[in-house]
Amino acid sequence: MSVLTQPTLEINLGCLLENFLTLQKLSKPSVAAAVVKDDAYGLGAKQVVELLYKYADCRHFFVAQAVEGEKIAPFADKAVIYVLQGMGQDNLEIFKQNPQLVPVVNCPEAFEFWKQNRLDKRQPVIHIETGLNRLGFREHELEALSQADKKEFSLVMSHLACGDEKDHFMNAYQLENFKRLKNTYFPDLPASLAASDGIFLGKDFQWNMVRLGAAMYGINTAPYRENQMKNVVSVTAPVLQIADLPKGQFVGYSATYRANTNRKVAIISIGYGDGLPRSLSNVGKVFFKNGGVLHEARIIGRVSMDNIICDITGIDNLQVGDTAYLAADFYTLDDMGRDAGTISYEIMSRLGKNPRFIRKYIK
Amino acid sequence: MSVLTQPTLEINLGCLLENFLTLQKLSKPSVAAAVVKDDAYGLGAKQVVELLYKYADCRHFFVAQAVEGEKIAPFADKAVIYVLQGMGQDNLEIFKQNPQLVPVVNCPEAFEFWKQNRLDKRQPVIHIETGLNRLGFREHELEALSQADKKEFSLVMSHLACGDEKDHFMNAYQLENFKRLKNTYFPDLPASLAASDGIFLGKDFQWNMVRLGAAMYGINTAPYRENQMKNVVSVTAPVLQIADLPKGQFVGYSATYRANTNRKVAIISIGYGDGLPRSLSNVGKVFFKNGGVLHEARIIGRVSMDNIICDITGIDNLQVGDTAYLAADFYTLDDMGRDAGTISYEIMSRLGKNPRFIRKYIK
Repeated sequence: MSVLTQPTLEINLGCLLENFLTLQKLSKPSVAAAVVKDDAYGLGAKQVVELLYKYADCRHFFVAQAVEGEKIAPFADKAVIYVLQGMGQDNLEIFKQNPQLVPVVNCPEAFEFWKQNRLDKRQPVIHIETGLNRLGFREHELEALSQADKKEFSLVMSHLACGDEKDHFMNAYQLENFKRLKNTYFPDLPASLAASDGIFLGKDFQWNMVRLGAAMYGINTAPYRENQMKNVVSVTAPVLQIADLPKGQFVGYSATYRANTNRKVAIISIGYGDGLPRSLSNVGKVFFKNGGVLHEARIIGRVSMDNIICDITGIDNLQVGDTAYLAADFYTLDDMGRDAGTISYEIMSRLGKNPRFIRKYIK
Repeated sequence: MSVLTQPTLEINLGCLLENFLTLQKLSKPSVAAAVVKDDAYGLGAKQVVELLYKYADCRHFFVAQAVEGEKIAPFADKAVIYVLQGMGQDNLEIFKQNPQLVPVVNCPEAFEFWKQNRLDKRQPVIHIETGLNRLGFREHELEALSQADKKEFSLVMSHLACGDEKDHFMNAYQLENFKRLKNTYFPDLPASLAASDGIFLGKDFQWNMVRLGAAMYGINTAPYRENQMKNVVSVTAPVLQIADLPKGQFVGYSATYRANTNRKVAIISIGYGDGLPRSLSNVGKVFFKNGGVLHEARIIGRVSMDNIICDITGIDNLQVGDTAYLAADFYTLDDMGRDAGTISYEIMSRLGKNPRFIRKYIK
């Protein structure tokens, strides 16, 4: 028996690379760009960029903020790093000092700023709105661009709202809008529409560049069928204590669980402070490998900052120091997202940034 | 007009200190310990420990993990740093190298480990279970301790399940249990039962040491009345774009919002990648200060990783680059927690760890 205290986050870079290569193949001859914003969805932008730059010859990356681009620039010497939130007073210096960074221009005001602060040897991307109603030029704003204005850009992009729902009417609607706007205003520019989910909608959606994010990290962006991606993230934590829970007793903050029969519980060293969603309270699952068999246990009571409590009644021979599996091949972050009432993207983005994990990268 | 891209997290250390001193006064003559686990609820353990050590003479800190204790030890030379998850094979070295760290012992197995690896000049804390049914010795395990065993400890502690609900039956139940177990098994030891919420339940709950966490960070741990604490955390983000949203159009991923009349929207540079809960989709609020008046806008559509979209119809004169207030004195993280279907603790713990913020400490 061991006494252990710290949870572990394992990131399988081998699987991540394999996912990227699979997606790259699926979207040929489009250029495969890697989306590494939000610290590569929390998994470590430095590690992901180094990997893809070296082993997949990836030369196009997308980040949201210039500060994110600055961090990865040293690991992607000859790459182009597109900055989705664009360029402004608060990050102009970063753009000046990092010649790999290329701004996305999302609206006329940002375009004015670009024209007042043009950077040598860089041509921004123009983002056009096709139905998501988030960032991007609206059509009347495109109409207002002069011919000289249009020559400022190197790429035209847009983004799908419902790419993860194969038959959603929005997909055809946005594709039609994109075709029409691109052909009307930027007939000669290369174009990018699809993120991970868009790739699976077929060749029409792939255009000249695809932006590989979620699927590369193992998320199922085509949830209408089995995931074709390899799982990348595993989370484990040690059992800190095993105890009897007598009939009638309550569990956790606000006493939201009551034992109606005698139960046995394990207290695990992970909580929302580590990025486990608190919405898993009373609904989440924990797994144990015991004698070659996988056992499933339910989280009972509230998820607290540093601990969860789970019902291990009927699982024999568990000990203090044993490993609880929170996320793994057999229960992915997609599964956890479903149980937590959210999406795996949000959970992945949380987990990776928590410094209490023993962080392991597997190649 | 400015073009700006990056969100800002502001942590008011002056208010935090004031909160600590208020709580310390309320709980005199108990020793006021500061709970700085989870990187001080995400706000920066280094900064919080430096502050309290220097300006409040705080000499007792609680962390969850030994790795957290190790990080703050240099800023709290003569302090005792209690480690709630205890000592095990995976952090023994950290305990050996940091003489300020004192383990909490939560169960017999951890106590055995302590006895096999006693550390000079340190006496652990014993954690006893009184109704939360989380970590802590159960009564039959206390019975099994010898007289010599009991002399190993320097403090006996437990933790309340429902301290934030003044009249919850659990409070009296746990207090009775704590009294009885402490007096039976550790009549001579100093004792600690109350965290922030317990202090407000009265003198009976305060014992020899109180553990100040949530309330110090501005969270209302007595939500049955107005918050007596000062707000510590403010979050702002710039407006990236303003656009018309024509009647019939959809907004955001999965098209969960549809405009039934012509609307006007602002796209803001913050999302769940920055720690804003995705459960604020279609329910969260954003505020603007405009001409000396505070305006309230609703988040529409899904919160995405880097952006939110809000309905600013009827708010005049907003511009790109204007400041959107996500959390402030007038809309605290407690308010956000209510809107997001969770608690401020979870949101605070997320926000602070995100590196994309411009992070400002105010004294």
